[in-house]
Amino acid sequence: MVTKQEIKLIKSLNQKKYRQQLGLFTVEGIKGIEEFLKSDFKLHRLYTTKQIFDDSKGDVVDISENELKKITALKNPNTALAIFEIPKSDKVDDDNLIVALDDVRDPGNLGTIIRLCDWYGVKDLVCSQNTVDCYNSKVVQATMGSLTRVNISYLNLSEFISRYNGDVFGTYMNGENIYNADLPNKGVIVLGNEANGISEKISSIIDRKITIPQFGKSKDTESLNVANATAIVLSEFRRRTIEM
Amino acid sequence: MVTKQEIKLIKSLNQKKYRQQLGLFTVEGIKGIEEFLKSDFKLHRLYTTKQIFDDSKGDVVDISENELKKITALKNPNTALAIFEIPKSDKVDDDNLIVALDDVRDPGNLGTIIRLCDWYGVKDLVCSQNTVDCYNSKVVQATMGSLTRVNISYLNLSEFISRYNGDVFGTYMNGENIYNADLPNKGVIVLGNEANGISEKISSIIDRKITIPQFGKSKDTESLNVANATAIVLSEFRRRTIEM
Repeated sequence: MVTKQEIKLIKSLNQKKYRQQLGLFTVEGIKGIEEFLKSDFKLHRLYTTKQIFDDSKGDVVDISENELKKITALKNPNTALAIFEIPKSDKVDDDNLIVALDDVRDPGNLGTIIRLCDWYGVKDLVCSQNTVDCYNSKVVQATMGSLTRVNISYLNLSEFISRYNGDVFGTYMNGENIYNADLPNKGVIVLGNEANGISEKISSIIDRKITIPQFGKSKDTESLNVANATAIVLSEFRRRTIEM
Repeated sequence: MVTKQEIKLIKSLNQKKYRQQLGLFTVEGIKGIEEFLKSDFKLHRLYTTKQIFDDSKGDVVDISENELKKITALKNPNTALAIFEIPKSDKVDDDNLIVALDDVRDPGNLGTIIRLCDWYGVKDLVCSQNTVDCYNSKVVQATMGSLTRVNISYLNLSEFISRYNGDVFGTYMNGENIYNADLPNKGVIVLGNEANGISEKISSIIDRKITIPQFGKSKDTESLNVANATAIVLSEFRRRTIEM
């Protein structure tokens, strides 16, 4: 059973303000919840219409389909909704490749970028304070569990970069051709906002501007979406580490 | 002014069946419409709340904000809605790189893939009959005008591949490492359905299975989304054509 108070709490977690106040966020669907249960994330409470979860992990509450409809943020809820605690971020490891986001706003883009970090073995994702919250339910949904394997820190990005001891790369329309560029196996790669790219403030402290060249001939072609740019840039950095 | 009959027609174009029967599709928003007006696409009729369009291109009708709300498929319509004719596909050019989709179902993925083809100079995109319709309004919206620069053909994919005279590549979890693979500057690259990958029927006629290797160590990591896989694969094929 789910009480009115609980419904109110769960609904409030759709807002960043309350997630931060309470230190909690929601995960929906069997597969996603199982990924978080396997991880170091701490379960606060799990609501489920089917008794298929290991209740040694914490508070598991049986609910009806109707009750699930009252707490879900999805059009088609899938069996269960869990509340987990937002963990403290680990210290960023300067000795590996780090992805940095300068005000990425779209939840789908952030979710995809987290998945790409997981795929390409990037352990640290650092985000400017205005980047969309990674505990936003749309982001959590889009990460397909990768959120449990990437350490995400929200911080003052220009301070972080200024203090960072190593190469800082940024993606631009008119930089060095990434395919010919000499790329190290560590460093910070900055990706910018969907509409405005990397801000002037951050641009002024970037060491190397890199570009994914356009092969099509039209001047009207839109620049690549930030998630696709991340895919291509990480692919380029990582392939250089393979012995040919 | 927009008549009841016209509203009915425009609404019907949200369904593939009527788009195909009538040979028409809709484009919304100033920027998207301008891209299509510049292209070879034939304007059927344009409805606009502002007189900012060149009416030498065809029938331009002034409407009110209220009328726009009645015909839009968007939550926040932007100034204008245009109806264009669906063109006949051009003949596929076997002498260039061709991207082939085997039942890609998500409009956002197809839209992103069309943008990537435009960026990487892929002129031909061939789609299995069950791939989502590229004149679906969500796809049109997601392509940001690239739809006017990529020739898209819906066809029997296994027949097309069987007749194709050249290398046919497919992306798999357990193929040749793409970063070390010898990749030609022409050929067909097949990408599969979001949930099931490339079908057995198509797999049986693929010459070379290629893989984007995972660098992260977790066995739980989900495979890359089809749009990101397309980004990385096109990046790899095209970079081989650059003189280093």
